[in-house]
Amino acid sequence: MELSRLVDRIRASDVRATARGISLIENDPEIGAGLIRDLFPHSGHALIVGITGAPGAGKSTLVDQLVSRWRKDGQTVGVIAVDPTSPYTGGAVLGDRIRMQAHANDPGVFIRSMATRGRLGGLARATADAAVLLDASGKDIVLIETVGVGQGEIEVVRTVDVAVVVLVPGMGDGVQVLKAGIMEIGDIFVVNKADRDGADRTVSEVESLLSLRPYQEGEWTPRIVRTQATTGEGVDGLMDAIEAFRSHSAEALASRRRVRAGAQLRIILSDRLMRRVERNVGSVDIEALIDRVAERRTDPYTAADALMDRAEGNV
Amino acid sequence: MELSRLVDRIRASDVRATARGISLIENDPEIGAGLIRDLFPHSGHALIVGITGAPGAGKSTLVDQLVSRWRKDGQTVGVIAVDPTSPYTGGAVLGDRIRMQAHANDPGVFIRSMATRGRLGGLARATADAAVLLDASGKDIVLIETVGVGQGEIEVVRTVDVAVVVLVPGMGDGVQVLKAGIMEIGDIFVVNKADRDGADRTVSEVESLLSLRPYQEGEWTPRIVRTQATTGEGVDGLMDAIEAFRSHSAEALASRRRVRAGAQLRIILSDRLMRRVERNVGSVDIEALIDRVAERRTDPYTAADALMDRAEGNV
Repeated sequence: MELSRLVDRIRASDVRATARGISLIENDPEIGAGLIRDLFPHSGHALIVGITGAPGAGKSTLVDQLVSRWRKDGQTVGVIAVDPTSPYTGGAVLGDRIRMQAHANDPGVFIRSMATRGRLGGLARATADAAVLLDASGKDIVLIETVGVGQGEIEVVRTVDVAVVVLVPGMGDGVQVLKAGIMEIGDIFVVNKADRDGADRTVSEVESLLSLRPYQEGEWTPRIVRTQATTGEGVDGLMDAIEAFRSHSAEALASRRRVRAGAQLRIILSDRLMRRVERNVGSVDIEALIDRVAERRTDPYTAADALMDRAEGNV
Repeated sequence: MELSRLVDRIRASDVRATARGISLIENDPEIGAGLIRDLFPHSGHALIVGITGAPGAGKSTLVDQLVSRWRKDGQTVGVIAVDPTSPYTGGAVLGDRIRMQAHANDPGVFIRSMATRGRLGGLARATADAAVLLDASGKDIVLIETVGVGQGEIEVVRTVDVAVVVLVPGMGDGVQVLKAGIMEIGDIFVVNKADRDGADRTVSEVESLLSLRPYQEGEWTPRIVRTQATTGEGVDGLMDAIEAFRSHSAEALASRRRVRAGAQLRIILSDRLMRRVERNVGSVDIEALIDRVAERRTDPYTAADALMDRAEGNV
């Protein structure tokens, strides 16, 4: 299929074209870039929501609940799941999978899982591009679900409009990866499984961490919401918080999108620069150079200069 | 002072020259690079130890204990503290500061704090370079103390020979930022304040997280050590674990250093490529381009290409 025809079909919300486009973004950065170039002018309508948290925090169940409610409101939704434990990628119980299957048959919902493989920056670029594609395909809301544990995942959260961090009280606390990097960028904090012992403590821990965050006049004040995703309790409150963020102030959202544009540009630029060096020099020669540095036969700065020179054909 | 004279004086363990060299690395990447080029062939002797963990985990007290013991063994030590709450940077009680002051008057110990400011990758480059410098100045052990919370800090840990992760049991668990990224790269896990309630639980949590880690034949098996840094209990066990890592196998250390060389080369290369673009294009024009992307008047790929073209003077 020609790229221009693919673009037209994605803009017409064609499911197969949308899936094909995301595959191109994942597997062929060059063609994917061409696709985004064409789709980008038609994007900007959707709200990009990031949902992150430790495995087992109940993110997928929350996503399921949110999707159902947004659909009842008449909003169309795209879901990108980069959580390796997510049910869409086959990591969970049958019940979950069947439930999401119901959404999968709804033309107003597009669900896609994305692999976490690939080098640094690659994941954030791919999810940001997939969000542009789903946005241009007419989705009102694009939800990116990710596990908040790795460096790549934090980069992903930097590319969304509004970041929701899901926590659970009690037993898992020590292991649940309440990471400061994500505390810094969270806009809404969900304490899920709020019927469990320790929910109050988790809420007050989040409050005390948030009190350390620098705050600027007019800025969005992060909200804390309690939910029980399995029963649906509190999910309306989460939707309200997301809406409140969206309508908080047009300037705040615009400034967030400017930060997002800067992050996206830097990710793409760094990715392209590094890829060009790798392409022009070749991995065998790069590995040989790393060996020379490891053996202290050359220093890393001289090695980096050599790579830059060779990448530009100066040697 | 001429660079060659500075290099000579650093190699002669001159304290002021060493301090000056680290300032150059921090503040002037170009001259700093020249310095590392000259010092690199004289480095490779020291063991680079990274110590990371949440604020309040007792890292600084542990570092103090380790330094005292290594000095008794007749080993010289360089300390680079990138922890903003570290006593060397003025964040702690007077007692700590006086204690470290004693080391500061010992010519066999060089202590330096480093700012965490600066852009992504900048911190890891600077600490890796400072480690090369201290190594070339004749230190037997170079200790890099960092707070395991940000993305930059994880990058730092990737550039050391052996990574020590400090955890504390009990109350702080939910807040203590037990992040998976660091779990993945830790070689030795210290459960400090091991007299506290919950120490056993923390040890078993670490064990269960480690059991999920892929393990290759012949690879180092991460150790868990209990300490009470304030009394010094268990610190000998930590030193033994560090020694055990060093002598585990020459191949394992060599392969670690090869990974480190690769990480260092990539950090420097990415940093240089991005800086060249910024230098050749100018921040005003970059900001204007980000505005255009944010306003959807251009897409990020076209913007990245424009930056690459302009950086090379093609436009």
